[in-house]
Amino acid sequence: MKTIGTAEKGRRPLYEEVAHRLSHMVDDGTFRPGEKVPSIRAMSTRLQVSVNTVKTAYGMLEDRRVIEARPQSGYYVCARLPALPTEPDARRPLLGAAAVESGAMVSRIMRDVNDPDRVQFGAAIPDPRLLPSEKLSRIMAAEMRRTKDHGTGYAMGMGLPKLRQQIARHMLKAGVTLAPDEILITSGASEAVSLAMKVLCRPGDTVAIGAPVYFNFLQMFRDMGLKVLEVPSSPVDGIHLDALERALSRNRVSACLQVTNFNNPLGVSLSEEKKRDLVALLKRYRVPLVEDDINGDIAFDGIRPGVCKAHDDNGMVILCSSFSKTLAPGYRIGWMAPGRFAERVQRLKMVSTLATATPTQLAVAEFLANGGYEHHLRRLRRTCADRVAAMGEMVGDTFPEGTRVTRPKGGFTLWVEMPETVDSMKLYTTLETQGITVAPGSLFSTGDSFHNYLRLNAAPFTPETRWALEAVGEAACGLV
Amino acid sequence: MKTIGTAEKGRRPLYEEVAHRLSHMVDDGTFRPGEKVPSIRAMSTRLQVSVNTVKTAYGMLEDRRVIEARPQSGYYVCARLPALPTEPDARRPLLGAAAVESGAMVSRIMRDVNDPDRVQFGAAIPDPRLLPSEKLSRIMAAEMRRTKDHGTGYAMGMGLPKLRQQIARHMLKAGVTLAPDEILITSGASEAVSLAMKVLCRPGDTVAIGAPVYFNFLQMFRDMGLKVLEVPSSPVDGIHLDALERALSRNRVSACLQVTNFNNPLGVSLSEEKKRDLVALLKRYRVPLVEDDINGDIAFDGIRPGVCKAHDDNGMVILCSSFSKTLAPGYRIGWMAPGRFAERVQRLKMVSTLATATPTQLAVAEFLANGGYEHHLRRLRRTCADRVAAMGEMVGDTFPEGTRVTRPKGGFTLWVEMPETVDSMKLYTTLETQGITVAPGSLFSTGDSFHNYLRLNAAPFTPETRWALEAVGEAACGLV
Repeated sequence: MKTIGTAEKGRRPLYEEVAHRLSHMVDDGTFRPGEKVPSIRAMSTRLQVSVNTVKTAYGMLEDRRVIEARPQSGYYVCARLPALPTEPDARRPLLGAAAVESGAMVSRIMRDVNDPDRVQFGAAIPDPRLLPSEKLSRIMAAEMRRTKDHGTGYAMGMGLPKLRQQIARHMLKAGVTLAPDEILITSGASEAVSLAMKVLCRPGDTVAIGAPVYFNFLQMFRDMGLKVLEVPSSPVDGIHLDALERALSRNRVSACLQVTNFNNPLGVSLSEEKKRDLVALLKRYRVPLVEDDINGDIAFDGIRPGVCKAHDDNGMVILCSSFSKTLAPGYRIGWMAPGRFAERVQRLKMVSTLATATPTQLAVAEFLANGGYEHHLRRLRRTCADRVAAMGEMVGDTFPEGTRVTRPKGGFTLWVEMPETVDSMKLYTTLETQGITVAPGSLFSTGDSFHNYLRLNAAPFTPETRWALEAVGEAACGLV
Repeated sequence: MKTIGTAEKGRRPLYEEVAHRLSHMVDDGTFRPGEKVPSIRAMSTRLQVSVNTVKTAYGMLEDRRVIEARPQSGYYVCARLPALPTEPDARRPLLGAAAVESGAMVSRIMRDVNDPDRVQFGAAIPDPRLLPSEKLSRIMAAEMRRTKDHGTGYAMGMGLPKLRQQIARHMLKAGVTLAPDEILITSGASEAVSLAMKVLCRPGDTVAIGAPVYFNFLQMFRDMGLKVLEVPSSPVDGIHLDALERALSRNRVSACLQVTNFNNPLGVSLSEEKKRDLVALLKRYRVPLVEDDINGDIAFDGIRPGVCKAHDDNGMVILCSSFSKTLAPGYRIGWMAPGRFAERVQRLKMVSTLATATPTQLAVAEFLANGGYEHHLRRLRRTCADRVAAMGEMVGDTFPEGTRVTRPKGGFTLWVEMPETVDSMKLYTTLETQGITVAPGSLFSTGDSFHNYLRLNAAPFTPETRWALEAVGEAACGLV
């Protein structure tokens, strides 16, 4: 066996040579997408280089998405993915603060999304088969038996104390220390974000948000009479802080709303450093941050990312989350840590929904305490990671030439950029007749930047639904 | 036995003479409050007058609140009640449209109301011991087992179809024909009313409402930046339509909000004729009506009163209700029939709470279908009627001289007018230290008209809590 040491020493750093070799073996089909590559130790022996050299090389190949680590299993060849979506130009002029137009399309999509006879790549809803539904319902029944009034009474004020304690404990993993009394239980993260926006903004005010924007937020802004300032976001590292700063310096902004982890739709997380910088920047401009962390628990590598709230030293960050993506969308259990706005948020909740349903609070609290939430998350993360990878690969195989797609490291949505000529609304209509729902890119902005984009929910993607994605790809090819 | 026929014929109509006799027997203690009086037939035999004459006499005595009919049981001597609260002068000048002041007191009361260690005469919450809690929780568990995803999925769109069907069927009793598709499930009646107001009003707009006003509505108006036009309401027949018309002719009013049956806090219902007139009046001024019917199912005489919505021929009435007063406040199951505003209401719900919790919808739907809701209501009505009567009587016995109290025919709240000098806020504070919560009258208006009033929740009033009401009376006497 020719070793690197003898043959090519000196020409380039050893770790690069190792990376090159393995990359070549992937290209020539020695190792095919999805197959395991030799372990670091085996490769070190085989190439007669140090373990550290191989480690560095494998790290480089991970960054380049040639191979990927799977926890407790080793390294695998990545799916052959198309390129990343086009990076937005952070220096291009911002769209002005814009009003949001008609929600007719969103209403239609929400109706389609509710139709059990459709294949649902549209809404970002978890696959019901991945949820611990039976266990949750058994826990709920047991908790109601144990409760004096069987859960028929109000859970007034901030919500069920036990649930708030469990959330506080769970969030320690995200590096944030919250007292149970700082947490308010809401009817899903939707209500949390909606309450936050209502407390922070008056009609006519302007909100800054990374674009593309989760479409339900745009509809919320519309119904509240708010203007939107869309700040370009990169599929690699999220919202452009320089663009945000420019926006803040030129506009009177009442709040900034941001999905900080596994962003919807981009799938990207802000690095911990960027989270700190974002908080500092907004603090400088005295703009409150509404942080949406609904996907934070679905990190594919199993490492719970942090939250901006951890860097908040003056109560200006309102952290919002829910168990809709990980446990039960239909339970409507969300929560928020409203910081300095707690009193106003609580009062606003009191005059709108008064309280959150008690039985579902009981069930989630007990599931967090003794139901094996972490164990469940491990399975959920693995499945989502597999489906996201497989779906991304298939998009590369079946979508028109030139299609680009994100590589999310958590959550379960893919953001797909198709060739300029493919109109995603037309695609939606074509697919509608075939019983397939996707989320057209046009919904994710007040402008026209994303007319050739799609958001796909990978959660329901299984071998059985491959035909449906194939149909999406074919329909897209027909529109080039 | 001397008969009326021989002794006093000709001096006054026979039925008046019968009424006079019985009234005298009540006064001299022959029949004491709460005791049964002879049946119509027995009295007819005894006084040798026709059955019809006795019927007429008993009817007069009912009107005068000397006796009362109890369904399937006969006639009883009424509790000795103090006078009715002062009738507001419908001709007095209206308060101008006013902004709502601080909600600090309401927040404090809502906190106290959540405290299980207090005797709760404050919030209008049903006594948990009167609710079919165990049955509901058993039904919920069974329904979740029967449902494919165990109730973890979203009940999107308008809400669970089965629940909407059951509500449509139930509301036929109130004389209104609603299609299930006209009904939207909400997180309690609170969310229903809040959605309605948000769709109808913009900040700065004016809302007309009968005064005294349920305090949470005032807080809602405050948080929405609305002005309130308080229209005087009579404890005998509800909102004064002539005053309302004057208000409408002089102000630009965006909506009228009214609790039409067993109004909170007055306990009064609009007659069917008045309901029709109210709808017609508002139609003439093109003002939508938000009708709150949360107490409609708790009519003491068992006859379900009608709703304004039944007279709505152009979709301008938004009917709101819930099962919080009759089944389970903590389930957060309300509903609304938004008429012509359906699409906007639905979209607003989508961007605030998205959907209502599925498990509690399943439970209420099945309880309505097969759980014996009517049977439950019969028991609930009877108990509420007894408690309201007993509490009203005790108010007469223990409160300061000159106190007046309503005679609600449904629901479970009493509206108490104390002498002018008794300040209800002071009373609240005094009682707070004794672990007793009441709702001070000042909360029910933007003005000062009700500073010497109280709303009492009669639902938790039992022989065991008599001491607490006695303490309220004593405290009030101390403040004269």
